[in-house]
Order: sequence, then C-alpha cells, then structure tokens
Amino acid sequence: MKNFVFHNPTKIVFGKDKVLEIGKEIKFAGYKKVLLVYGQGSIKKIDTYDKVITSLQKENIQYVELSGIKPNPVFSKVLEGIEICKRENIEAILAVGGGSVVDSVKAIAGGVFFDGDFWQVFQRKARVKKALPIFVVLTLSATGSEMNPSTVITNETTREKFYFTSTAVYPKVSILDPVLQFTLPNYQTSAAASDIIAHIFELYFCGEDETELQDEFSEGILRTVISFTPMLLEKPDDYHARAQIMLSALFALNGINGIGRESGDWSAHMLEHSLSGIHPEIAHGAGLAIIFPAWLKYMMPYIEKKVIRFSQKIWEMDSPDAGIRNLKEWFNSIGLESSFKNFGIEKKEIPIFTEMAMRMSPLGSLKPLTAKDVETIFSNCF
Amino acid sequence: MKNFVFHNPTKIVFGKDKVLEIGKEIKFAGYKKVLLVYGQGSIKKIDTYDKVITSLQKENIQYVELSGIKPNPVFSKVLEGIEICKRENIEAILAVGGGSVVDSVKAIAGGVFFDGDFWQVFQRKARVKKALPIFVVLTLSATGSEMNPSTVITNETTREKFYFTSTAVYPKVSILDPVLQFTLPNYQTSAAASDIIAHIFELYFCGEDETELQDEFSEGILRTVISFTPMLLEKPDDYHARAQIMLSALFALNGINGIGRESGDWSAHMLEHSLSGIHPEIAHGAGLAIIFPAWLKYMMPYIEKKVIRFSQKIWEMDSPDAGIRNLKEWFNSIGLESSFKNFGIEKKEIPIFTEMAMRMSPLGSLKPLTAKDVETIFSNCF
Repeated sequence: MKNFVFHNPTKIVFGKDKVLEIGKEIKFAGYKKVLLVYGQGSIKKIDTYDKVITSLQKENIQYVELSGIKPNPVFSKVLEGIEICKRENIEAILAVGGGSVVDSVKAIAGGVFFDGDFWQVFQRKARVKKALPIFVVLTLSATGSEMNPSTVITNETTREKFYFTSTAVYPKVSILDPVLQFTLPNYQTSAAASDIIAHIFELYFCGEDETELQDEFSEGILRTVISFTPMLLEKPDDYHARAQIMLSALFALNGINGIGRESGDWSAHMLEHSLSGIHPEIAHGAGLAIIFPAWLKYMMPYIEKKVIRFSQKIWEMDSPDAGIRNLKEWFNSIGLESSFKNFGIEKKEIPIFTEMAMRMSPLGSLKPLTAKDVETIFSNCF
Repeated sequence: MKNFVFHNPTKIVFGKDKVLEIGKEIKFAGYKKVLLVYGQGSIKKIDTYDKVITSLQKENIQYVELSGIKPNPVFSKVLEGIEICKRENIEAILAVGGGSVVDSVKAIAGGVFFDGDFWQVFQRKARVKKALPIFVVLTLSATGSEMNPSTVITNETTREKFYFTSTAVYPKVSILDPVLQFTLPNYQTSAAASDIIAHIFELYFCGEDETELQDEFSEGILRTVISFTPMLLEKPDDYHARAQIMLSALFALNGINGIGRESGDWSAHMLEHSLSGIHPEIAHGAGLAIIFPAWLKYMMPYIEKKVIRFSQKIWEMDSPDAGIRNLKEWFNSIGLESSFKNFGIEKKEIPIFTEMAMRMSPLGSLKPLTAKDVETIFSNCF
C-alpha cells in the first residue's frame, strides 16, 4: 500500500427536501451574493429551480444567473462565468445541476483569481491556488464532482477535453436530495451507473497491492450499483434505490477508494475524453461502457489477478473473461451500447481519437500507453 | 435511510515515517507553541518520542509536556492540562498516543474555553463550542478518536465514565504511521480489534433499514479485521497487516459507517463504560468482547434479520446463533476472555454496574433499556 494524505473538507447534506436548506447554508458560511449556475432548463420543468430561489430569497441571498451549461461543458461558458463574477462582485458560486454544471462552476471559481491564459491550467502548465467558495445542489449523481477537487472541461476551439485538480475547488457544501433526481430520464441513470463503475475501476484496477479494505469498499459500491440501477430504471422515483445510487456515486470518487493506491490509472477515462471531446453528443458514461471492457481485455496481462478477484466478488464466476463478459452484458441490460458503431462512428476516426488521447500523455500508471496501444483499444471498441 | 449530514474536516497523513512530518504540519497550520501530551512513557521505550521532538525542534515549535495519561483516562488529568494551557499560553495541543491520550487532549482542548464546572459537559448539561486546535500522532489504532469529534473520560470521584461530542474537537491533522505500532503488546492489538468490531456493531445493528451500501462498508471492515488481526498477533511488525487494521479502526468510526443511520445504538458501549469506570484495569475492548455477544443475544428480537445477514456475510453461516457463536470463538482465539468471571468480577457487582449504566440513560435507540434489561445483559456476561 502506498502512503497517502486524505483530507476532504466538503460538507454533505443528504435527504428529502434538503434543497430548501441551500440558502441557510450559504448565509451560515457568510456570503450574500452568488452566481447561480445551471443547465438547459430541466430544473425549471420540475420545481427544483423554484425551491432554490425560494430558499435564497428567504435568506436574502442575492443572485445573478448563468444558464445553458451543456453536457461535456465548454470552456467559452467558463470564461463567460468568470467575467460575470468579476463584473458583479460575486462572493460565491452555486451550482444547481449534475457533473457538467458542478465542473463548470469549479472552473469558473478557480478562473476568477487566475491571471493569464486560463486554459494553461488544463494543459498542466499552471495551477489554481485560490477559488471562490462553491455550493452545490446536485440534480444528477454520477461524476462525484460534488465531493472532489477535479473538473473536466472541453475547449471547443481545440476539441481538447482536459481536466484540472485543485484543493481550492472542493465544494464547501453539497446538498444531495434524492427527490430532485426522480425525474431523470432512464438513459441518464444508466450512463451515470456506468460512470460510477468506471471511477471504481480506475482505482481498483490500478495495480496497487495490499489494499484489501479499499477493495472491499470498491466491491461494495460495485454490487450496490449493479443491484439498484435496474430497480431505478423500473421505478425512477424509488427513493431508496435513488439514495443508494447517489451514495455510490459520492463514495466512488471522493477519495476514499483511492487511499493507498496513489492516484489510479485513468487511461480509460482519457480515451473516453478524446472520444466525447470530438463527439460531445455521446454521454461520458455511455462511452465508458464501451471503452472499459475493451481496456480490461487489453490490460489483462497487467491485472489478471485483480480481474479474477473482480469476477469472483462481483459475479461469482472464476474466469476473468467471464467477469468482463458479464459486465458487458450488464451494461447492455441497462440500455447502454457495446460498440462505437451504434453511435454512427466509423473506424476511420480512430487516428483522430488516438492523436487527441496522446495529447494527454502520459496515459495511465499501470503501463504508459503508446499510440499503438491506444489505437488497438479503440479498434476493440467496434 | 435517515437524512444525514457528513462533514469530517480531519486531515489524515498515513504511512511509513510520516511521524517526522508532525512539526511541519503544525507549523503549516500556523502554531508555534504546543502542549505535548502522552501516556506512561511507552513512546520513550521506542523512538517515537525522539522522532516527535526532532520534528518539532526542526520547525522551531516550542512545547510543554503533560505525561502520565492512563488507559481509561481520568478527569483530574484533563483539568491539569487545561491549567497548563492557560498558564503557558498554549496555541495547540499535540497528542502522541492511542485513544486515551487523544480523548484527554480533546477534553483539554475544549475545556480551555469553558467557564464553570467542566464535568457538566460530560453530563450533557452544557456544550463545548470552541477548542484549541488538535494534532495527533497515533500509536494505537482502536478508538477511531483520531478522526472523530468524541471523547470519553472517567471522573475518578464519581466513577462516571462519560463522553461528549463536539465538532470543535475534530483533530486538525492525524498522523498514522504503522511503524509506530509495531511494538504494541498482542493483548492491546486484540483489545483494539474488539473495539473496532464494536464500533461497527453499534452502527450496523442499530435497526435502520435501506442502508445496503453502508452495510457493505461495515461488512468489509469486519472481514478485514477478522482476517488481519491473527496475522498481526503472529507478526506484530507486519506492515501490511498493521496498515489494514489501522485503516479499519479509522473508518469504523469516522462517520462514514454511520451515515443514514442517525447515530447508532451505543447501549453496549454504555454498559462497558459502567464496567470499566469501576474497573479501570479492564481494557475497553476486552470488556466489549464479553458484553457484545450477550447484548446481541438479548436484542435478537429487534435485530434478527440483521444478525442473519451478519452470519451470512461474515461467517458464511445461515443461523443467527451460529454467527454469534463464531464471533465469541473468534474473540477467544485472539486471546480475549468470554466471561466477567475471568476478570475476577463477582455477580454481586451487577447492581452497581447497572446503577452506573442507568445514570447514562436513555440507553440505546433500538429499545431504550430498562434497569432490568441491563441487569439481565450483565448477568449473561458470566
């Protein structure tokens, strides 16, 4: 096991109707004017928006709005948010949405105090050291962004989908109210399940030894996602199942699964980022559901023992191949595709994906992937 | 599942030789003068004391010492510490020890800012709202005190062993260096294992439903403790096993196992506190290894379904009685007693234990225990 530091300062407020406490939390923390960031209006179709506004008004919190954040959120919107914060003397930022909104808010919060070309932070040429305080009302549990220090943003000009990590962007408070997620379309619930599983995989299959307790936690989350996702697809407003999935997403990537493993492998995620950077219409989780089985097969020489453990603990099968096959079948059973072909992608795009992925190199810690490795994994996604 | 708030601000620094970073952590947090608190000198028999002093001196941190903290730590020592802090203008407190030292430090840290009879805080008549910052170098992983907001102290005058909880006493930084625990006597390792298991039980058997993910975490910790404790007894300086047990102790009571379960049952702990309040020579974990099987049997009507799950998931047995029997046998196998008789305690003491336990009532959340209930459970410990 590797040495580690664990320090996660985010306060989680979880439960029915907790959305109504967001104003109180912001006021308690000492802020009076926020930038309210959300997506394309789904929070207005249900009453999430009204609940948030009511809670802000009750505590006399002023707000300026920035809406229109899309899945695979874009850098131009981040720059727009930074400008508003500076112009309006914003004191804190409130994200009401899923991972795309939270990630946009993290980038805006860090960008406010950054001088120079902010994309350099995503290119790992500079760092974010200070950020505006962040509050979250979560409407889609998947990315874990509500309790971690990372953000992934796509630069529309360069098509680069890059990330940065900074302790300055841990949310101060995240409100997780399962009721707000009752109206999610099933496809988003399925893509979210795949995203949660992928986060576990990046840490679980990273090659570290002597991490039994962490593996127990990882496997517990995997089994929970695998049993509760089908229940949610059957009944999207099942409070119990929704709450279990929300907890799974939270703990998959709040640092606990990563302790003693250094920082995971993450090459499969980078491959997916190069895919959805070019095809932003593809949901991150949907891409991962195709890439991860291919990645597992390709990396088998480095992780066979762990894949056998995975097969046993999750599927009660002994062969590693059976474990991967079961995983693919399970993704299919919840409505996710198993080939790039079904997205209308053609094999001739592989070199473009590969070139984009290699821009993020070094890729992976298990084995730094070469362009040839990446090409082969992409080929196996068809 | 119950609504919950999770907010644990403690920074954990884990790994080999991390003890040498304690000075840096204190300096980084901005403090220049600490009260250094430790136990009866075991940290001087090995070189833990020297390592701590070296690290403090390197960063020019001044220190005043308070030593002689005993297991089942006492209130008079807490008052002594408070006096020193006031007299010497102490800025922060450094605990170098196990749960007894950390708990003493929490009480001292809170007492410094308290006006009036400080024992009233333990009697739940007043609250701690402010405390000196706390740093920890942990030399025995068991109580979980290194990452939680609670402290248990015995008042020698009244024989009351009471606790308080306050978010003000979360340690700022806890250093967990497995090497410092290599020289622990086996009996302490065994008592620690029992304490960890007891923490899980209080939360796992508290009657809450729909907590599958939390149950997965609990069961993962139980299996880890059950497999690695015997390895440690065989080889106390087994880094891997020591690290796994340290993580288990940490996560058993840092709040994660408790989310959505409100706050657990804790009546078995209160029974043990009344025992070791009167018999401070009995290690907390050793007392719990006798009380918990008796408590489980007595409470069976309220928790049978969960005891069956426990038997299946931990022991691969179907009957609830078999699960409890296996647990008792396992405690015996690691050298812990299974009857109060073996401590030289006589049945005529039961009324005293019972009277003391009832002072802490209400006892338990599953079923508030009456004096008769408590007497019966104590009788079953013989």
